[in-house]
Amino acid sequence: MSKLFMFEKPLGMRDTLPFLYKVKKRVREAMTNEIEQWGYEFIETPTLEYYETVGSASAIADHQLFKLLDQQGHTLVLRPDMTAPIARLAASRLYQNGNPLRLAYHANVFRAQQREGGRPAEFEQIGVECIGDRTVTADAEVIRLMITALEQTGLQRFTVAVGHIGYVNALFLEILGNEERANVLRRFLYEKNYVGYRNHVRSLPLSSIDQQRLLALLDLRGDETVLGSARELVHSERGAHAIEELGELWAALRLFGLADSVKLDMTLISHMNYYTGILFEVYADGVGFPLGNGGRYDELLEKFSCKAPATGFGIRLDRLIEALKDTRIEEDIECIIFSQERFAEAIELANEKRREGRKVVLQHIVGIQDIDAYSKKYKSVTYLLGRNGKE
Amino acid sequence: MSKLFMFEKPLGMRDTLPFLYKVKKRVREAMTNEIEQWGYEFIETPTLEYYETVGSASAIADHQLFKLLDQQGHTLVLRPDMTAPIARLAASRLYQNGNPLRLAYHANVFRAQQREGGRPAEFEQIGVECIGDRTVTADAEVIRLMITALEQTGLQRFTVAVGHIGYVNALFLEILGNEERANVLRRFLYEKNYVGYRNHVRSLPLSSIDQQRLLALLDLRGDETVLGSARELVHSERGAHAIEELGELWAALRLFGLADSVKLDMTLISHMNYYTGILFEVYADGVGFPLGNGGRYDELLEKFSCKAPATGFGIRLDRLIEALKDTRIEEDIECIIFSQERFAEAIELANEKRREGRKVVLQHIVGIQDIDAYSKKYKSVTYLLGRNGKE
Repeated sequence: MSKLFMFEKPLGMRDTLPFLYKVKKRVREAMTNEIEQWGYEFIETPTLEYYETVGSASAIADHQLFKLLDQQGHTLVLRPDMTAPIARLAASRLYQNGNPLRLAYHANVFRAQQREGGRPAEFEQIGVECIGDRTVTADAEVIRLMITALEQTGLQRFTVAVGHIGYVNALFLEILGNEERANVLRRFLYEKNYVGYRNHVRSLPLSSIDQQRLLALLDLRGDETVLGSARELVHSERGAHAIEELGELWAALRLFGLADSVKLDMTLISHMNYYTGILFEVYADGVGFPLGNGGRYDELLEKFSCKAPATGFGIRLDRLIEALKDTRIEEDIECIIFSQERFAEAIELANEKRREGRKVVLQHIVGIQDIDAYSKKYKSVTYLLGRNGKE
Repeated sequence: MSKLFMFEKPLGMRDTLPFLYKVKKRVREAMTNEIEQWGYEFIETPTLEYYETVGSASAIADHQLFKLLDQQGHTLVLRPDMTAPIARLAASRLYQNGNPLRLAYHANVFRAQQREGGRPAEFEQIGVECIGDRTVTADAEVIRLMITALEQTGLQRFTVAVGHIGYVNALFLEILGNEERANVLRRFLYEKNYVGYRNHVRSLPLSSIDQQRLLALLDLRGDETVLGSARELVHSERGAHAIEELGELWAALRLFGLADSVKLDMTLISHMNYYTGILFEVYADGVGFPLGNGGRYDELLEKFSCKAPATGFGIRLDRLIEALKDTRIEEDIECIIFSQERFAEAIELANEKRREGRKVVLQHIVGIQDIDAYSKKYKSVTYLLGRNGKE
């Protein structure tokens, strides 16, 4: 174990300097204001949860969890997502009378990283959970809200891919007969490894018709015309039901003013294993990973002894900012540099400017070492120096 | 080890429900807006830091740290305060040319708790650090800013006690001759156990004059007239210098419009062992613990290989909210309940209200189980039901 330099930070941990802080704040506020306008209420949950409860209910792989032991011998985790903690909170305290509950959050979540220079181990998510409403209208609402909130941040070119986990599961079960085989194919889809998927399908001991059905799945991406072809591929009621729900979703999205950004993608699979129905992902031009995702999870709350349907989305703030083209922040801090003699005058001027809503640094000249460098930092500098000094 | 209920949270961990979230947000914004107006720039640091670096530089007792091991075998801690991480960040990246640097934060910090029903193990702090300015003006600025920011939250009855760690240390060293004995007395002062202090002083093998000097320290609380008496008690240059600084501070605070809330308290000792000069605590009526504290720490940055004076304050948001009398939040969410037939009309109405800046829940009636309970939740409810329905 090597000795650390005093400056070092743990793997994947990052500082947010003033410029990025301001960008994050602006983008966060654009999203959270929109979310509040749709009547979602923000909550906070603890950074640490029990591994036995929320940790095991979350869909994040074990090796990505930050774990520690408490003094009672229980394992704690730094929350790896917000959906499981909100399910706990809704089940224990907020979900009542079976009525819809609209909750929202902006919070840091944690995923342990294995390599230097890799992904962040702590990042901020902004999202909503609509709990207790099993209608497709609720799914349409969270998708429409997600798109509107993203538009409010200034994000321009992005795509929302919408699928249905029930459809893929039904098709695979019909053809492959068991979950083990289905898992192999789901893995290829999750990794978006379509070459691997094709090769694997061709290697399976299936009729050529069934092989064709599995291969045809890959073409089921586009606008609502996809739904007709998708309907023909499945025979089971479960598969047909999924298509019906997507049809209803599309109709509801139309009423909400369907955005060009929404596409159907019947191959969509999530790394979140708790999804049970409609699910979606959002991608932006030039960013290699999804900005966020969401979907319906009608069985998660049962883990917290509470039967309730639910749907929601989560957006990663870091990736959203990466996708935004315009992240300029104007320097808006003014500075008053004064000497002792004119301290009172400087205070008065600062108070006056602050009353007008301006940001003002008040700085005694004795505290400055390099005045040329210092004065460059601010939008403007006013000097109040010496008994007869002028500005 | 007992089995956990699914709802349980780790010791000292709490959820923030919508009402408290709104109160926290309002109070946080009142403070952070004021802090920004004084030209302080907000930053964020990671939740996890190395124990070897930031963990050991912080002033929090070891048994209060949440620790975990990373895959390289290093011990990580959940940050127990923000001053040490900011010192790391300033030293490594932001402090340049020896010029003043004004940084601010609002962040959760972590302190492990030993008992059920006790103090929170995670809580939010809001604070500033003014780094690189050794003038007393900087100390006066952070005290004045703290008071103004607290006033902005609506806090009314609070007291800021100001002392000087250099004074206490000088007096004790003059009389007691060594740090070990001084530590015993400092401990009594820190615990505000003045009876214990008196008894201990009387038990010491000192001249009655020296005993009287130590006992007289307890009376050094009040307005600036205290400084004269305090000056007489010490003989060392170090002690005299501390009094001089407090005199300058008082003059600067006067120029800043000295608030009635500021009192001198020469017995003030902090649990933060990194303070080197002027220090202060803020108390509010009816809250048993300080809302926050601050002071000068001219040696902390040296631990990060960077010589720089610094001063700052930190306020605990939970205690501040406890101290606020008025934490009413008006329910401001409206609701539109619609049936399928009138979905389009409902969307249009919601859009219109949201454009006016109002918060609107749009709810399909099929998603509601108990409409009487549901409708009570909102400020107003508009029903758009049935083909010929009226509102």
